[in-house]
Amino acid sequence: MKRSDRLVAMTSFLIEHPMELISLPHFSDKYGAAKSSISEDLAIIHRMFEQNGTGYLQSISGAAGGVKFIPQTNDTYSSKFIDHLCKELEDPSRILPGGYLFMSDVLGNPATVRNIGRLFASKFADLEIDSIITVATKGIPLAYGVASFLNVPVIIVRRDPKVTEGSTVSINYVSGSSKKIQTMVLSKRSIKEGENVCIIDDFMKAGGTINGMKSLLEEFQANVKAIGVLAEAEDEEEDRVVDQYVSLLQIKNVDAANGKIEVVKGNYFND
Amino acid sequence: MKRSDRLVAMTSFLIEHPMELISLPHFSDKYGAAKSSISEDLAIIHRMFEQNGTGYLQSISGAAGGVKFIPQTNDTYSSKFIDHLCKELEDPSRILPGGYLFMSDVLGNPATVRNIGRLFASKFADLEIDSIITVATKGIPLAYGVASFLNVPVIIVRRDPKVTEGSTVSINYVSGSSKKIQTMVLSKRSIKEGENVCIIDDFMKAGGTINGMKSLLEEFQANVKAIGVLAEAEDEEEDRVVDQYVSLLQIKNVDAANGKIEVVKGNYFND
Repeated sequence: MKRSDRLVAMTSFLIEHPMELISLPHFSDKYGAAKSSISEDLAIIHRMFEQNGTGYLQSISGAAGGVKFIPQTNDTYSSKFIDHLCKELEDPSRILPGGYLFMSDVLGNPATVRNIGRLFASKFADLEIDSIITVATKGIPLAYGVASFLNVPVIIVRRDPKVTEGSTVSINYVSGSSKKIQTMVLSKRSIKEGENVCIIDDFMKAGGTINGMKSLLEEFQANVKAIGVLAEAEDEEEDRVVDQYVSLLQIKNVDAANGKIEVVKGNYFND
Repeated sequence: MKRSDRLVAMTSFLIEHPMELISLPHFSDKYGAAKSSISEDLAIIHRMFEQNGTGYLQSISGAAGGVKFIPQTNDTYSSKFIDHLCKELEDPSRILPGGYLFMSDVLGNPATVRNIGRLFASKFADLEIDSIITVATKGIPLAYGVASFLNVPVIIVRRDPKVTEGSTVSINYVSGSSKKIQTMVLSKRSIKEGENVCIIDDFMKAGGTINGMKSLLEEFQANVKAIGVLAEAEDEEEDRVVDQYVSLLQIKNVDAANGKIEVVKGNYFND
């Protein structure tokens, strides 16, 4: 196979298999090329991925070695994307009765969801995450967005047990803002003891839901390695029960009377 | 930019932008290359995409023309993937009380979900689908899988209205197998009149839920252009209220007493 053909094939293969260790012999067998040619191809792909903010190729040497595509956006790209999201959410027609924001269209756009996933995955790529957890319903697309880049399973917490989940563990928790007692249910076979878990959700007010997921994960003796939320509300900061998290957006102010919303960058770029 | 560099950049760009018309000048500006060079690059990418079952590049000529990446798997690939899924589901430890199957791990695997999406998208690529609809919870990942290849939004039907959905349209429907009356709710601003919609769900027994979505879509005067389900149950066929659908799998027999499950290919390859 010619270099030009190989580059197309290897680029698509690597993009489809993020975080997966691919041995050089695998590539040289697949494309009928010497290992030295494959190494040169990989160097080109690595350089272009870095240049375009797609990520980079990590080389692991030794007999069990190979190459891993690590998704990694650059700050220019992330910053531009977040700015764009802020603008999109500041559209006054999003204001719903009670000062809530309509966001389902944003969460329904697969390209947006993929980009949100890309940003969180970039941030969490070196934490050795084993799985992504979220609570039904709105967090699910975002969780898959992150999972598709980290190449780990998604686990969905539910509000009520379903027969198709098999035996479950359930907890009661107090929601942060409304102080109501709520329930969360997780299938028993979904998480193994000692797993490194990343919590993803669309929106955080006081953080009660995320805190509930943390308590549930304690029952499974799993480690919460990272928390990512698309948007956080500003006004609840003093009561917040969760402190270590990464947010892309902060909804600073929803002024329903004057039809104005202020959305700014979250803490993604802090530190 | 050199051809080798361009091929990597253009391959990743096209994979990230399926079904999107990209003008040749866009590429020649972006990569500082003559249109003739870009055309040669695209010919290489087209050939490799076809060869690997990734899809193909559709050229649209004229002033408003350009190139579109159409995801399209080949039958060898699809067949191998479906066989693998059948095997995975025949694992007897999946049997739950009542003869239900535990499938959350399969639906939680982002690579599996992406492949399922790829298969349905291949089948529905020329139907000019405007959006994908599904009902919370389990169909959501699959709907995003399909949507990410067709590059259209996902719309989620809920069982109860949520304040964050704004005003909604709700219908009551009779579930196919249990004959119980159930409710479905859809945000009013989610679908426009005349839209071409594709229904995606994880599992179909008698088809009551899918029929419910069809009735709901009638309220919006939307056209149901395609229905895709991951798995259908065999034993309900005579009572089935939905007839035009594509299924990847058919669960033929769950023998809880002897710990045996039989899963075969669905109607995906028929016609």
